[in-house]
Amino acid sequence: MSASVAGPEIERLVQLLARLPGLGPRSARRAALHLIRKRETLLAPLAEALRVAEERIVTCSVCGNVDSRDPCTICGDERRDPSTIVVVETVGDLWALERAGAMRARYHVLGGVLSPLDGVGPEDLNLAGLIARVAERGVSEVILAVNATVDGQTTAHYLSDLLSEHSVAVTRLAHGVPVGGELDFLDDGTLAAAMRQRTPF
Amino acid sequence: MSASVAGPEIERLVQLLARLPGLGPRSARRAALHLIRKRETLLAPLAEALRVAEERIVTCSVCGNVDSRDPCTICGDERRDPSTIVVVETVGDLWALERAGAMRARYHVLGGVLSPLDGVGPEDLNLAGLIARVAERGVSEVILAVNATVDGQTTAHYLSDLLSEHSVAVTRLAHGVPVGGELDFLDDGTLAAAMRQRTPF
Repeated sequence: MSASVAGPEIERLVQLLARLPGLGPRSARRAALHLIRKRETLLAPLAEALRVAEERIVTCSVCGNVDSRDPCTICGDERRDPSTIVVVETVGDLWALERAGAMRARYHVLGGVLSPLDGVGPEDLNLAGLIARVAERGVSEVILAVNATVDGQTTAHYLSDLLSEHSVAVTRLAHGVPVGGELDFLDDGTLAAAMRQRTPF
Repeated sequence: MSASVAGPEIERLVQLLARLPGLGPRSARRAALHLIRKRETLLAPLAEALRVAEERIVTCSVCGNVDSRDPCTICGDERRDPSTIVVVETVGDLWALERAGAMRARYHVLGGVLSPLDGVGPEDLNLAGLIARVAERGVSEVILAVNATVDGQTTAHYLSDLLSEHSVAVTRLAHGVPVGGELDFLDDGTLAAAMRQRTPF
């Protein structure tokens, strides 16, 4: 679509929508048309929701989560176990663990993983805040809930070394067969790990 | 994600994003996080683009296209052949033909197709405007560029009957092998049509 066909306003909208993850140029055009068709019920509310998010969403100064409060709702929740910190790479991972109801703990969002190839070093991650939290009294366990990728595991080892100076237990997520997963479709590494870490039936 | 985790503002943003075509709940969450991370470069501009679109985009009273002008840029373009009207189902189809540079003509957007199963009848389509335009002097050809679906073809037949009272040529898009397409992957109907409508080499 050239700008001369649909006008610069629509063109601009399509270009911005195409920068969202999961939308390409074609689906961005479909989304723009859908928004224009649903002006009252979707376009206007979305514009307002974005404006509100722009104005109110902040990064939690304690854990790195995003919320309209600082400290965030989770850090401010007195019912959560303050002795355990779950370390995650991204806010998306935090949301995933919360959806799963995996642990009623506090979190710490690194904001990425160590990646020499991408030029991400320890200074680029939210590490100082983690060490400061662990150094405070009352934290007894740090769970490394980083992704099971090479960079994620490198980061886990680095964090484990860093935390060894402090008297906290450092644990990580179990490897194994996904619930509902079929053995035939699993990679060798996962199967071997699941076998090694087998549990009593 | 429950509202208590990320706050109602983010929850609302995710819910609205999930209503865009091409985004489900998971990709809507990813998109929301991406927007929050790119607050200055993406979230704020998108909020503004939506606000501008909400304010300025109108439906062209001549052809049914969407634009910030009425008549739209295409209907107002004096260099386009006024004797030919290309009838399309949706604005998305209009954009697709424009991107292809298929025809420097005027358009008419039906806003759908006849579909007895979905309860869409002639009164639901932008037909009166089309007949009025054809009844004016100067239109010599109506090209039915509707989709090659059952409903699209039903609509084409209906339009062809409707237009038979007027002295215009009614044509439709050719069926055939897509450019770059492989015969082995084409359905029988397309292959048969391509054979019937073969052209001199």
